[in-house]
Amino acid sequence: MGKGDETRRAVLDQAMRMVSAVGMRGLTIGTLADVTGMSKSGLFGHFKSKEQLQLAVLDHAAELFVDVVLRPALKAPRGEPRLRELFERKLSWDGRYYGADGALPGGCIFTNLATELDDEPDGPLRDKLVQHERDWHETVATVFAGGVTEGHFAPGADPVQFAYDLHGVMLAHHYATRLMRDPDAERRARASFESLLRARAVPAA
Amino acid sequence: MGKGDETRRAVLDQAMRMVSAVGMRGLTIGTLADVTGMSKSGLFGHFKSKEQLQLAVLDHAAELFVDVVLRPALKAPRGEPRLRELFERKLSWDGRYYGADGALPGGCIFTNLATELDDEPDGPLRDKLVQHERDWHETVATVFAGGVTEGHFAPGADPVQFAYDLHGVMLAHHYATRLMRDPDAERRARASFESLLRARAVPAA
Repeated sequence: MGKGDETRRAVLDQAMRMVSAVGMRGLTIGTLADVTGMSKSGLFGHFKSKEQLQLAVLDHAAELFVDVVLRPALKAPRGEPRLRELFERKLSWDGRYYGADGALPGGCIFTNLATELDDEPDGPLRDKLVQHERDWHETVATVFAGGVTEGHFAPGADPVQFAYDLHGVMLAHHYATRLMRDPDAERRARASFESLLRARAVPAA
Repeated sequence: MGKGDETRRAVLDQAMRMVSAVGMRGLTIGTLADVTGMSKSGLFGHFKSKEQLQLAVLDHAAELFVDVVLRPALKAPRGEPRLRELFERKLSWDGRYYGADGALPGGCIFTNLATELDDEPDGPLRDKLVQHERDWHETVATVFAGGVTEGHFAPGADPVQFAYDLHGVMLAHHYATRLMRDPDAERRARASFESLLRARAVPAA
């Protein structure tokens, strides 16, 4: 990786941190220049437009998500172990990459963008977010289906419903942690997850 | 209700609709004047400041929520019937008051504000939202506990965990409807709800 790539990555990291707290609305070439101490013209030359910058931030976050959640989790044994790894990594991914002191200041950027962008007109940014989310749900459903094949979960359990339910658990965790500052949020999220698995247990013979 | 109250209510209704789509960030005395066609000075004289206006919008939404969700649901028989009524009304409350054509343009205003305000500094607006949410969770937990007393749910089922789980179902529904435009969102939310109840069923003797 050349020096240009490193700089780009560092700039996108700072942009992503900003977006996690104040949303895409708070991200402009100007605010990014303030935060990074780089020149507006340099950033403009690099990203060309606000939209290109926003798309680059989303791509950067998605790559990070693959690095710290998907790729390592998919190394776990197929079925329930892989699903548990996916859950645990998703639960803490916004802190995991940075270490305890440097977690994303606004928590999971995708959860924040979901409510910010849902009423925006269709366009490249909204589309890219939706595609990322679709990929995530498909991964969860596929991993769950692998657990059905392995005999870890009840035959006939619906992988798409599982992915829907698991997403609710993640959203409730974000909400309980960030808005409600509930000290039990993590324990509650794990209890919800266990309950989702129990509901899909293989029936006793 | 005098003419002043009616006007105030109509103005707050329009403000609430705007906030549901663009958030509190998009609400100023100026933008509200544009939308309502009223004079800035008149609105300013009435609401005094942007913060007072924001607080009034939140109070207005909370009153509406009581009118279309809580008060009617609490008339249903105690326990499971009341819980079902609460769920159904919460699921559709952002459309119920206005009828099919006039639903809140951004969906549930509280869900949108939860991610917008969670990283805001402590202050009257964030506090008011948190208090509203706490009241809601306490209502759900109390209604669920009534179902335990009535023998509709397993003794020992945790009402606070139930309220946490149910909130996840509601958040997933908002997300699936608004961001993902999933035509199955409502059916999936109902399936999740039934699954939450089944997990708390009274064990067979």
